[in-house]
Amino acid sequence: MKRTTDDPLLLTPGPLTTAPETKQAMLHDWGSRDRSFIDATRRVREGLVEVSGGGEDFTAVPLQGSGTFAVEAMIGTFLPRDGKLLIVVNGAYGHRIAKICAYMQRACEVAETPEDTPPDIPAIAARLAADPEIGHVVVVHCETTSGILNPIEELAAAVAGQGRRLLIDAMSAFGAIPLDLAKVPCDAVAASSNKCFEGVPGMGFVLCRTSALTAAAGNAHSLSLDLHDQWAAMEGNGQWRFTPPTHVVFAFEAALRAHAAEGGVAGRFKRYSENCRILVDGMRALGFEPLLSHNLQAPIIVTFRMPSDPAFAFADFYDRLKDRGYVIYPGKLTVADSFRIGCIGHLDGDDMRGALAAVEETLREMGVASGAP
Amino acid sequence: MKRTTDDPLLLTPGPLTTAPETKQAMLHDWGSRDRSFIDATRRVREGLVEVSGGGEDFTAVPLQGSGTFAVEAMIGTFLPRDGKLLIVVNGAYGHRIAKICAYMQRACEVAETPEDTPPDIPAIAARLAADPEIGHVVVVHCETTSGILNPIEELAAAVAGQGRRLLIDAMSAFGAIPLDLAKVPCDAVAASSNKCFEGVPGMGFVLCRTSALTAAAGNAHSLSLDLHDQWAAMEGNGQWRFTPPTHVVFAFEAALRAHAAEGGVAGRFKRYSENCRILVDGMRALGFEPLLSHNLQAPIIVTFRMPSDPAFAFADFYDRLKDRGYVIYPGKLTVADSFRIGCIGHLDGDDMRGALAAVEETLREMGVASGAP
Repeated sequence: MKRTTDDPLLLTPGPLTTAPETKQAMLHDWGSRDRSFIDATRRVREGLVEVSGGGEDFTAVPLQGSGTFAVEAMIGTFLPRDGKLLIVVNGAYGHRIAKICAYMQRACEVAETPEDTPPDIPAIAARLAADPEIGHVVVVHCETTSGILNPIEELAAAVAGQGRRLLIDAMSAFGAIPLDLAKVPCDAVAASSNKCFEGVPGMGFVLCRTSALTAAAGNAHSLSLDLHDQWAAMEGNGQWRFTPPTHVVFAFEAALRAHAAEGGVAGRFKRYSENCRILVDGMRALGFEPLLSHNLQAPIIVTFRMPSDPAFAFADFYDRLKDRGYVIYPGKLTVADSFRIGCIGHLDGDDMRGALAAVEETLREMGVASGAP
Repeated sequence: MKRTTDDPLLLTPGPLTTAPETKQAMLHDWGSRDRSFIDATRRVREGLVEVSGGGEDFTAVPLQGSGTFAVEAMIGTFLPRDGKLLIVVNGAYGHRIAKICAYMQRACEVAETPEDTPPDIPAIAARLAADPEIGHVVVVHCETTSGILNPIEELAAAVAGQGRRLLIDAMSAFGAIPLDLAKVPCDAVAASSNKCFEGVPGMGFVLCRTSALTAAAGNAHSLSLDLHDQWAAMEGNGQWRFTPPTHVVFAFEAALRAHAAEGGVAGRFKRYSENCRILVDGMRALGFEPLLSHNLQAPIIVTFRMPSDPAFAFADFYDRLKDRGYVIYPGKLTVADSFRIGCIGHLDGDDMRGALAAVEETLREMGVASGAP
């Protein structure tokens, strides 16, 4: 891909390597209550709804802060203060939602499977049938803890079948993994600027079913994180309630244009899938073993089991790869010692092959015979 | 000042016009868990403590989001769940803190004076003496609703005299208005990247008395806005808990360097004071009347009463000034019809004189004889 710097490439789940045009969009200053910025906010909101396929039933509400801020805002706004939430967990981001509920003192339960195992949908349906107090279910679309792709359509159908409302943390998936809100029944989808849209970090957003958002007035535990209030203000005068990250928003608008030019979700899915295939095949050839089988692996980030060769030390491997221009990511699994390599961002097949060559050289330099666990 | 774009100058309370070097610092990408970014976070935190004068008793905790997020985090973290807060109010930002407390369902009371009137410190002291349940007091240092500078030293002494804890929303003042934490007794001071430090928006921060922050574990109503948790994590591994706005942080680091090079708070106070003097004198010469007398006016943003000339229409005045390259700010007063012009950001006396010339031309073009109210 085209570069204007010699920064190391970020093979991480985000912040990512972004396109030069995305960063260059930040070389200006804008008044946050001026027409130029109001127009940019409108274009970004409209662009997100278009990507989502949600049409007139959905509205996009951007929010200052990281993706977790958007997820907390989604839970705090859509879950009534006396509601009860079932959290589908197979990784750290599911557990984080349980922590969010504990802070908010809202009732929740966890339906957990191991980090390398998809949710047990029949068990979830049975649990909903048995507990009428559970009004909402939340699931993480792609759990970057492992890189697993959760079966969102099947889960959404099961939740809708029980007459409950679904919330989706699609942080690392939205924009690259197909999720058509015209077909997947849910009330809200949270994501952020710096994942598959390849913007810079500093802004989250939630695609909200407008009817559900309207009904959610007064639920929120936090002024800053009240999506209903944020939305009502934006609908009123087109402005953010509190100072928006103006530069991040303009970078995101540039990133959205690049997303559309690449063919939207389909185009991005294709490039990331190819990046992922090259990465997994190349790492396997070096002896490394991915945690997940192909059918569970999202083309976002790949978890590899830690090599057993005694000459392999992850911190050293990381530093040597960074010196060669590639930043990878530590593991987050509890079930196995591991590390992760992302395949999203402004990266193509040549970049992935470059990373693989760097891994091969690094192993040789470290005296590691194989990446086998 | 040096420019690299022909963007209109922002005569607003922020986001501001920033220096070219500040924006150019964003032309890279960084891994959020990589050493390069960890080091930048450390330098920013150390730089903020140095500016504050708080020395070893204080620690700086940056937070994703706008200034309001930082203020809400400060209140939510430092005010115990069963605590009671006295909010010193003479403008919209004081009222916003009362709204934050309502969301959090924490007890608070308001000590209010009109928007053009400083707090009544003897009355506040008497109120504290009469109500032992009030453990904390919060005040806005410079209320940008009017531009009034609140008497922080006297208030802090009164609060300390009653044995209570003070929290300060110094959003639009910190970095330019002297506030020496070695001398002003308080537990926390909240501000943001895009005010007097002249960074880009997307990050707030709170200077925290470490002993008070340590004692505040478990208070917060929100995971995202828990300053204790954010601080404990940063002290542990140097990293932000959740995705940081990497580009905003590097821009802020560049802005902090420029702040130091200008002579720190004293240097910035001098430039802004001169900007403010030129603005007020020039506007007075055109007939405009500032809301506040000189002794109450912070050199941050100036409120002018709306002219009474029937040919004056604010929306038209705003648009014509923007066409000439200057973005001003609408009023926020409830006591009088008004508009505001800021004097902070990467602006000097020549810029203020340019703005005044544009105001004069605009009045002539609109057929307004005088700016008198």
